[in-house]
Amino acid sequence: MTSTTIRATTREELDGIVQAAAEAAPIWRASTATQRAAWLRAAADALDSAIDELVEIAERETRLGPVRLRGEVGRTTGQLRLFAAVVEEGSYLELTIDDADPSSTPPRPELRRLLVGVGPVAVFSASNFPFAFSVAGGDTASALAAGNPVIVKAHSGHPELSRRTAEIVASALESAGAPAGSLALVEGRDAGNALVQHPVVQAAGFTGSLGGGRALFDLANGRPDPIPFYGELGSVNPVVVTPAAAAARGGELAKGLVASFTLGVGQFCTKPGVVFVPRGAGFEELVAADAGSAVGGPLLTDRITAAFPEGIDRLLDDASVEIVAGTPSAAGTDAAQPVVLSTDAAAVVARPHVLLEECFGPVTLLVRYDGPDDLARALEAVPGSLTATLHSEPGDDVAEVLEILQRKAGRVLFAGWPTGVAVTWSQHHGGPWPATTSLHTSVGATAIRRFLRPLVFQDAPESLLPASLRDAALARLPHRRNGVLTTP
Amino acid sequence: MTSTTIRATTREELDGIVQAAAEAAPIWRASTATQRAAWLRAAADALDSAIDELVEIAERETRLGPVRLRGEVGRTTGQLRLFAAVVEEGSYLELTIDDADPSSTPPRPELRRLLVGVGPVAVFSASNFPFAFSVAGGDTASALAAGNPVIVKAHSGHPELSRRTAEIVASALESAGAPAGSLALVEGRDAGNALVQHPVVQAAGFTGSLGGGRALFDLANGRPDPIPFYGELGSVNPVVVTPAAAAARGGELAKGLVASFTLGVGQFCTKPGVVFVPRGAGFEELVAADAGSAVGGPLLTDRITAAFPEGIDRLLDDASVEIVAGTPSAAGTDAAQPVVLSTDAAAVVARPHVLLEECFGPVTLLVRYDGPDDLARALEAVPGSLTATLHSEPGDDVAEVLEILQRKAGRVLFAGWPTGVAVTWSQHHGGPWPATTSLHTSVGATAIRRFLRPLVFQDAPESLLPASLRDAALARLPHRRNGVLTTP
Repeated sequence: MTSTTIRATTREELDGIVQAAAEAAPIWRASTATQRAAWLRAAADALDSAIDELVEIAERETRLGPVRLRGEVGRTTGQLRLFAAVVEEGSYLELTIDDADPSSTPPRPELRRLLVGVGPVAVFSASNFPFAFSVAGGDTASALAAGNPVIVKAHSGHPELSRRTAEIVASALESAGAPAGSLALVEGRDAGNALVQHPVVQAAGFTGSLGGGRALFDLANGRPDPIPFYGELGSVNPVVVTPAAAAARGGELAKGLVASFTLGVGQFCTKPGVVFVPRGAGFEELVAADAGSAVGGPLLTDRITAAFPEGIDRLLDDASVEIVAGTPSAAGTDAAQPVVLSTDAAAVVARPHVLLEECFGPVTLLVRYDGPDDLARALEAVPGSLTATLHSEPGDDVAEVLEILQRKAGRVLFAGWPTGVAVTWSQHHGGPWPATTSLHTSVGATAIRRFLRPLVFQDAPESLLPASLRDAALARLPHRRNGVLTTP
Repeated sequence: MTSTTIRATTREELDGIVQAAAEAAPIWRASTATQRAAWLRAAADALDSAIDELVEIAERETRLGPVRLRGEVGRTTGQLRLFAAVVEEGSYLELTIDDADPSSTPPRPELRRLLVGVGPVAVFSASNFPFAFSVAGGDTASALAAGNPVIVKAHSGHPELSRRTAEIVASALESAGAPAGSLALVEGRDAGNALVQHPVVQAAGFTGSLGGGRALFDLANGRPDPIPFYGELGSVNPVVVTPAAAAARGGELAKGLVASFTLGVGQFCTKPGVVFVPRGAGFEELVAADAGSAVGGPLLTDRITAAFPEGIDRLLDDASVEIVAGTPSAAGTDAAQPVVLSTDAAAVVARPHVLLEECFGPVTLLVRYDGPDDLARALEAVPGSLTATLHSEPGDDVAEVLEILQRKAGRVLFAGWPTGVAVTWSQHHGGPWPATTSLHTSVGATAIRRFLRPLVFQDAPESLLPASLRDAALARLPHRRNGVLTTP
């Protein structure tokens, strides 16, 4: 399918790359906000300038099409620029000062706290976002913004794009004054496994499958000195439609659902994969009507192309599952066609491991429920997810449903559909396992927190303090002093 | 040594305790700041009222003496009250709102983000702080403040105190209106292991040994659904004395060191365990003179009492190690006497796993160095620590030393000694592995972050938002809106 193949990084090459990152790390940690913001913007500008070349390579390697890919470059460079603004704004440093108090028992020293970069970060890029969750994606942007060099493990689905992106970003960073070793690329599974276990690497970010992510998570935690592993692994993104919502706007909801689960050929991590619908409300028929005209397309890689019909077959093997719309593609077919399946809430409760596993590609499972208790029991069986969506009407009593959905997901939607993840200050893209492995987000301004650690200076002479902890800097940075939060 | 023994919690008892916590969890999560602050203060008041009874039990079980123990009760209740203030202040919620922007591409929904409790938390209490790092200690206080019920695994060193403290706190919480199941106790290693693996438990806090902590860390990460495990495992707390500092104030520094490494009979996690001293500056002799009159005492448990002379023997087995002061206690001796040992920087570089392991009790190791390069090489061999202390004079070039110490520790001191950890907004009690397992602190206001997870509401009707995300609450709480941080 792709015209390029990976060039497996050798152990010697990896050691050299990691050593260069180790040497760059103190320079990144000590860099000023102005420097770091300029470096991030230089990377964004260089990618924007190379958009035609990059999109051409990405089209060839991912078949996602030029419109989507150009939009994704914009998302990626916008993300780098958002993190430049986050660094300049300064709240991310969590500057906190407690002045000395000789009168307290025991006498209290002066303490000045800030967050600093953890050190070299490994980033494992994703198949489904060749720009925004890959070499220069959110993990890389937030790790650099936090003041860390980054080593990216290229995704095997787009090796040439990974190389070219890394060249452009590394060169832009160096031209802007960042040290050599700021961003590098490794290729091949062995190199990835070695990377997450390398003593110099201090944290890892990952977006991909539950199996691959769990294996790397176990390697990171199995080290003699475990490191944090921030993985986004899998999510079924439950949707609940109440009887009142189905009655009031069933047609509109059916259209929205079909558009969302087929967007990007169903390859978004926020794809609505399981939809709880009131039995007998006619909602399945509305979805069937819309899905008939929905457009499929080629999937990202040979592996995903092969896995899609297998996933549908696994669901159809369950006696409760029926086809609502679409014809499952035969194995070997190149373009995946949208498929809607259905089952009952009782089946989901009985066999969650069969029916509630993420299935990549344009398929969704409608789950019929018979009332509030039936719905609540089925929702309890849903694994941790990035999102949960509730379509209800003002008169509905949704307290119990909402209590469960808040426990199951990191983002709860009350209108619209979960695909489309705005990159903003407030975004949260994370959720209970297996959605993510941590209590932090991989999208939005606070993603930076994953790659920072607290550092406190006790009774330090001002000349030995980092610049942002000195009184002159505090005058222009948000900080807390003796318990009181102050904005400049 | 202790008059009481543990009463191992059975699996059935554990299931009941955990189920009660699961039922309490949504009530804690939904509780208002006013309620939660009142619950924390009620627990503090009840402990203060019972101080005489509690200190009497603690003296019997830990032999730490009434002065230290009364002080520790004050630290514990002060900590509960600090977290009540943290909850009322509201910054910990990280309220972040991005208003909808229909004009952006794609149109941006309204997003409202806050942090909420993760759910039931397991707390493993420590031997060396029977109050401040035990049943009602920092992990419990911060987990409750975050809005979570807590299940504590009692330390086998003080079971009766654990039971009585749990009774007092549980009863105070319930009297103040908190739900049943808010705080419970389990006993025995099997119950502890089962607790950290129980599906209902969502996070764990631990203070103790590297071996015990690593075993629980592995259980937490080995779950089908791993949970965050926040452990404080071990720290040698390096101290560096420059030649100029030894010359200018060697006597004062020697006194300070002896007072610090013998404080609490050397059983603090911030004990200065390894001190880098300039060769031939006469500092060892000054320490020897002071250590001669230093007072030892009984250690906390039979196990620690047995391990202390073993640890010293292990160090003395290394050909480079000499006794500077003190006479190692024979095995079986009940009162540990202070011991100062010495070695060379080259030995530390060659055998860090022998010479740089934490040894609980009143012992410290002086490491002679021959100049900046010798010192830097030896410091690179030091494992991650809670603290690092630099005693230098204004003329010293300490850039390289400081660069290494900042990488090795979470708190860097420039005066005084690392024992004594102020409970404040800015405190950081954590460091690279094996000091702690995470990028968060276990002491100070931000310890609460360990037990919170982000939750975002997209396009929610105001009536379905949590109270603190509604516009009325934002008027009186710190929050960020459209990127701008606002304080009330």
